Amino acid sequence: MKNIYVIGVGLIGGSIAKDIKRLTPAITIHGIDKNPEHLEEALALNIIDKKAVLTDVVNADIVIVTIPVDACVVLLPEILDLVSDETLVMESGSTKLDICKAVENHPKRRNFLATHPIAGTEFSGPKAAIEGLFKGKTNIICEVEKTAFKLQEKALTIFKIMDMRIRYMNPEAHDKHIAYVSHLSHISAFMLGKTVIEKEKNERDIFDLAGSGFASTVRLAKSSPKMWTPIFKQNKDNVIETLNEYINNLTAFKKRMEADDFDAIFDDMESTNHIKDILNGIE
Amino acid sequence: MKNIYVIGVGLIGGSIAKDIKRLTPAITIHGIDKNPEHLEEALALNIIDKKAVLTDVVNADIVIVTIPVDACVVLLPEILDLVSDETLVMESGSTKLDICKAVENHPKRRNFLATHPIAGTEFSGPKAAIEGLFKGKTNIICEVEKTAFKLQEKALTIFKIMDMRIRYMNPEAHDKHIAYVSHLSHISAFMLGKTVIEKEKNERDIFDLAGSGFASTVRLAKSSPKMWTPIFKQNKDNVIETLNEYINNLTAFKKRMEADDFDAIFDDMESTNHIKDILNGIE
Repeated sequence: MKNIYVIGVGLIGGSIAKDIKRLTPAITIHGIDKNPEHLEEALALNIIDKKAVLTDVVNADIVIVTIPVDACVVLLPEILDLVSDETLVMESGSTKLDICKAVENHPKRRNFLATHPIAGTEFSGPKAAIEGLFKGKTNIICEVEKTAFKLQEKALTIFKIMDMRIRYMNPEAHDKHIAYVSHLSHISAFMLGKTVIEKEKNERDIFDLAGSGFASTVRLAKSSPKMWTPIFKQNKDNVIETLNEYINNLTAFKKRMEADDFDAIFDDMESTNHIKDILNGIE
Repeated sequence: MKNIYVIGVGLIGGSIAKDIKRLTPAITIHGIDKNPEHLEEALALNIIDKKAVLTDVVNADIVIVTIPVDACVVLLPEILDLVSDETLVMESGSTKLDICKAVENHPKRRNFLATHPIAGTEFSGPKAAIEGLFKGKTNIICEVEKTAFKLQEKALTIFKIMDMRIRYMNPEAHDKHIAYVSHLSHISAFMLGKTVIEKEKNERDIFDLAGSGFASTVRLAKSSPKMWTPIFKQNKDNVIETLNEYINNLTAFKKRMEADDFDAIFDDMESTNHIKDILNGIE
């Protein structure tokens, strides 16, 4: 394991590269990115050792693909076409069903591993990369049985370097669950931000009145639309289902307020306080 | 200024007491709380110097009322009945209109100052009190012209100790703006928490899949229903207005997804990214 190629040297790819470089300096990290500025930045920040182009992956021991999920479904088959029989190709997208489908009939399917390391921030680009971002976090692996055994082992070596907890799940279950705990949170934050911006034309007023509670709730509205639009597109049905349930709960809350049923509102909030216990250990 | 009485020794009252004690040790802080355990805790934690009961406020130079807003509208007139002509009575509730109305015709109206220090956490009780909680944060003062000039000065001395930025606003404007940047955030978080809990009966699955993004967005759902139910009740009309707009924005987002109009979704998120600039300085 000498040559690792990271395609997409942003927050996720850059953070993985940083962990690998720190703990296994003998490995050479090659960076590939369609944005030449990001590639230069990643080199200057010492996140990658060398710049490369897509066809260079013929020399790769491992290819790590960390690009938006719409680009991923297009590029993955091309990458598998190029790599050797011993190369592990893995990606880290926030959707799994479309990605697994994109390669299901590829002759090199056994070279591929679908993963979703659940970690990140609302920032993007190589400057956002953080050493130790994945430490103690969960990595969801899908369809592990379709990956060659030796290459599964290679992947686990990398995840050990990243210090992640591994969970196995099928792509359908992944996309359904993640719609609730991740995709819906993003929409909730984006629409909260939108609602407040629309109302509060005078930004100084928002700034003066907004506290840390608002900042926390709306934080994900800083996320990259380039990354998130294709996620919502690929996970459309699940996301719409979560949105329906969220809108129904908000509407029920509003109706209780209109009916002055504040006892029900109290009960609603009190039972939701239970989220405290669930969240212990995440933050 | 020797004797300050804090009524409600929780997160806010306790944090104010801590700031005052640290910077002006000559002042005696008397604590009053209907929860005897909280009072003992506050004493043990050295947040207050002495326990007191309501009628003791006859001896107060300053009374700081930090209790839920429904209790506040009941208790404030009683406190004003008791205090001397030189006593400043101030409160820190998250609504201002009903509170100002509760004392508008009181003979001691000029002893009262309505404030809203915009700071806090999702925790409550004396153990949640933090030194420096208010540092650099905004304090909204309402109807300042109705407070005696000398007592305004007394209040500003305390706010200087707390190191707060002062903004003056009328109660109607306060309640309208705060509905957007604070009250709506809480409902958004509570209903997000509810939606996810309802769906994910297997809590281990939430824990494993939820990342820091979800934790941040749902954080306010840990807040106290005892504190928040009366806030929503008092600010009912404004909160319903914000909820309508939020639900409309979520519904429009969902319809765009259903219509596969992902360009519009991209634009929506990109223009909301502007929240970055607005939030700079809050976090």
